[in-house]
Amino acid sequence: MGTESGRNPQQWTLGELAGRLDVQLQGDQHHCVSGIGTLQNAEPHQVAFLANPGYRKQLADTSAGAVILTEQDAQEFNGNCLISPAPYVSYARLADWFVPEPQPAGIHDSAVVDDHAIIGQGVQIGANAVIGPGCQLGRNVQIGAGCVLESDCLVADDTVIMAKTWIGPNTRIGQRVRVHPGAVLGSDGFGLAWNQDHWKKVPQLGGLQIGDDCEIGANTTIDRGSIGNTVLHQDVRLDNQIQIAHNVEIGAHTAIAACTGIAGSTKIGAYCLIGGACGIGGHLQIADRITLTGMSMVTHSLRIAGSYGSAIPAAPEKIWHRNIARLRQLDKLWRRLKRTDKQ
Amino acid sequence: MGTESGRNPQQWTLGELAGRLDVQLQGDQHHCVSGIGTLQNAEPHQVAFLANPGYRKQLADTSAGAVILTEQDAQEFNGNCLISPAPYVSYARLADWFVPEPQPAGIHDSAVVDDHAIIGQGVQIGANAVIGPGCQLGRNVQIGAGCVLESDCLVADDTVIMAKTWIGPNTRIGQRVRVHPGAVLGSDGFGLAWNQDHWKKVPQLGGLQIGDDCEIGANTTIDRGSIGNTVLHQDVRLDNQIQIAHNVEIGAHTAIAACTGIAGSTKIGAYCLIGGACGIGGHLQIADRITLTGMSMVTHSLRIAGSYGSAIPAAPEKIWHRNIARLRQLDKLWRRLKRTDKQ
Amino acid sequence: MGTESGRNPQQWTLGELAGRLDVQLQGDQHHCVSGIGTLQNAEPHQVAFLANPGYRKQLADTSAGAVILTEQDAQEFNGNCLISPAPYVSYARLADWFVPEPQPAGIHDSAVVDDHAIIGQGVQIGANAVIGPGCQLGRNVQIGAGCVLESDCLVADDTVIMAKTWIGPNTRIGQRVRVHPGAVLGSDGFGLAWNQDHWKKVPQLGGLQIGDDCEIGANTTIDRGSIGNTVLHQDVRLDNQIQIAHNVEIGAHTAIAACTGIAGSTKIGAYCLIGGACGIGGHLQIADRITLTGMSMVTHSLRIAGSYGSAIPAAPEKIWHRNIARLRQLDKLWRRLKRTDKQ
Repeated sequence: MGTESGRNPQQWTLGELAGRLDVQLQGDQHHCVSGIGTLQNAEPHQVAFLANPGYRKQLADTSAGAVILTEQDAQEFNGNCLISPAPYVSYARLADWFVPEPQPAGIHDSAVVDDHAIIGQGVQIGANAVIGPGCQLGRNVQIGAGCVLESDCLVADDTVIMAKTWIGPNTRIGQRVRVHPGAVLGSDGFGLAWNQDHWKKVPQLGGLQIGDDCEIGANTTIDRGSIGNTVLHQDVRLDNQIQIAHNVEIGAHTAIAACTGIAGSTKIGAYCLIGGACGIGGHLQIADRITLTGMSMVTHSLRIAGSYGSAIPAAPEKIWHRNIARLRQLDKLWRRLKRTDKQ
Repeated sequence: MGTESGRNPQQWTLGELAGRLDVQLQGDQHHCVSGIGTLQNAEPHQVAFLANPGYRKQLADTSAGAVILTEQDAQEFNGNCLISPAPYVSYARLADWFVPEPQPAGIHDSAVVDDHAIIGQGVQIGANAVIGPGCQLGRNVQIGAGCVLESDCLVADDTVIMAKTWIGPNTRIGQRVRVHPGAVLGSDGFGLAWNQDHWKKVPQLGGLQIGDDCEIGANTTIDRGSIGNTVLHQDVRLDNQIQIAHNVEIGAHTAIAACTGIAGSTKIGAYCLIGGACGIGGHLQIADRITLTGMSMVTHSLRIAGSYGSAIPAAPEKIWHRNIARLRQLDKLWRRLKRTDKQ
Repeated sequence: MGTESGRNPQQWTLGELAGRLDVQLQGDQHHCVSGIGTLQNAEPHQVAFLANPGYRKQLADTSAGAVILTEQDAQEFNGNCLISPAPYVSYARLADWFVPEPQPAGIHDSAVVDDHAIIGQGVQIGANAVIGPGCQLGRNVQIGAGCVLESDCLVADDTVIMAKTWIGPNTRIGQRVRVHPGAVLGSDGFGLAWNQDHWKKVPQLGGLQIGDDCEIGANTTIDRGSIGNTVLHQDVRLDNQIQIAHNVEIGAHTAIAACTGIAGSTKIGAYCLIGGACGIGGHLQIADRITLTGMSMVTHSLRIAGSYGSAIPAAPEKIWHRNIARLRQLDKLWRRLKRTDKQ
């Protein structure tokens, strides 16, 4: 099972491939390939890759026509290799050739585009999309079917907004950004003031700025600022179902896995790697180059680069229940131990 | 408070009901009922059920016209009973009679259906739905209002896609599947390769296959594979707001509660029961018949059937803070204890 | 960076402001302001506020033209103050003046409104919205672009349903409710009965009732009841990406932060404050005035008002791993200690 060349159904010799990917070939330069596959499932006309060491054991048995791998892994492999200092990057470049062509430019008849929107050259707007007054779409922007852009949004060149995304008023989105279906960008933050005997909504008046080259996952929600802006700097990568509260700022090149939530006004540094389903409290500072393991909770600022965690891996339920029971008495245990020590 | 017979406003004697549900009646076969209700709220013209033992204490005071229960529970109840080896299944069958008729077949004028889509007999397509080129909808498929099906999706007979769902290109959905509103099926996975000083997107070229009789909850997201497919086998049941990453495979009859996330390339067995808000890491193997309690984290493969957990139930905050403080010094405590032991 | 007066571009003297907000002015009553800003960024023509003590240190350096604060904070501030017993409430009132006017009443040409829907005076329905048969929209209701209301929904006066929301059949929504984009209100609950060798879907026949003045966050999902109703009482405030299962009942004035999930048939009291990413089990009773800290899990009823928690803050990964290893042997440690004690 793998992927054939869709856009340009064609084949390449490994020699050509090595040249185009700027990697070193070890093996038969005349062998022809026309698709990509996994180490486990690739066939002789397909190229596979080895990036995650956990899959190294599959190398011996692969039927792939060639494997993209590091120089070190190549030493233990007899088949055709494309040797790269960064096999996953080289694979990604190869995979780019298999991405289907985007739909042709044009605005679908059923789209509702306000007369006061400014639409750049090469823009594609899908069926039933709604583009509000004052919106500006740069060159080659793609807006999927059923999207709703409220008033005065700015979407810069070459950005792709996939179907069924909502973009709030005044949102600014950079170049080459990719937003996946169902995302909500620029919603009201959760601002409430307790007024004697009921909640008073605090109007959310700020905006949302998304830098160039960011990626926003499916059904992810990002609130606009309450006064100032919520900001994603360049090349921030968000997976699906992430929640970013009002006035959060995320530094360049930070990547966040699915289901993580970040509370209001927290500032995340650059080059951070945040695991899935983490919870990060509000009004915190997370330094550059922080790694958080999955399902961690952060309640204080983390000011020193490094890896942090707080989640506990699952154990058989009976054993776990016994340990929880003890954990809930841990303070008492500790005190008793101290008494014993003194005696 | 309960539900009256909507589709066919009518009434049945308990004798008729017992026959149609294939259960044993104990009590007045001529008593007439016309609706269903809970043990607590049902009235004499309504049928209730007892499946969760936590509600057994409500049996004594129920005003229900009859109760569906097990033979054992029937021994302690003086009212009319419908005795079933599986009361919840029998209740579900009865409840089926109260489900409103689906809307009549037909394609709403405002729907945008590509000329190259193939639409089966009895298909119903709601207002403002968008069906892309190359899609095939089997017999009696229902597509809700505002859905977007990208190109080349296959939806088999009798499947119901509720409103505002997005289905990515080439997705294959089996028969009798039910997808709830806002689901995103076949989005790009979170594939990123670090390229010296920035992220390079790894194209997501695989597909998504959903087996017969699956159910997908509201706002749940399922990524398509990066090379091969993401696969849900037959009768997989997913609750709301679940996140399934690329290349995950879920075995038949596995049920997963809301808000759980599963990272990429993990394989979940058949007949698993996975609690809400769990986090399951990537590239793992979860065996058949694994039960995970709610909010558990899994970071290693689980190869032996059974129940696992790792979450901790809430305690009063002050006590909990003291125990956390000790937990964070637990390794030190342990070492001290060992020293004491040796002495 | 701040927000200028958008709706009515104008300015006020601090004297006027104090009068309109019913607060006490300390400072120059003739100073003119025309916008709002944060303590850190506000300029002399803008008003800032101090509500969260964590920002008190910014008071000394603010350039704001005036600051809304408590009498106590005013004693340590030399600039212009608007003294309020509840500064955040006073700020919210001021911020209300900067909220843009709603779009004018009217039904967009592209909206699909069933002939049997009843539409009140002053209603605004956005592009491509779908209003099903039997729906009733009260006065001044706003329905955003791309919303889908299934049959027989009732939306009371002055409620705002933002774009791309789905509302299931028979849902009842009170007055002045605000629903944010992508919410799913009234979806089927996760009702499954195990029938020998496969799952049988349990029809979900109940409804959803949302009280006056509630707020529902973006991409939040609320299931309708299985027999009776899911109920949100008055002034319940839900953040983004919350999951509320079937037959949950939430008491008046309870606020829940993002990403929390509540399992079926649980009853949450009034005046509760529930942190983000909590998981609350099914069939539980949570008393009035319970506070849950973020990422807590609740598996038993909480019957006494107070603050509860169970999550653990992140620590450096190496230290944390050592403590986890000990935690997993905690029961053994405890037993050993007991033996030592006896000796």
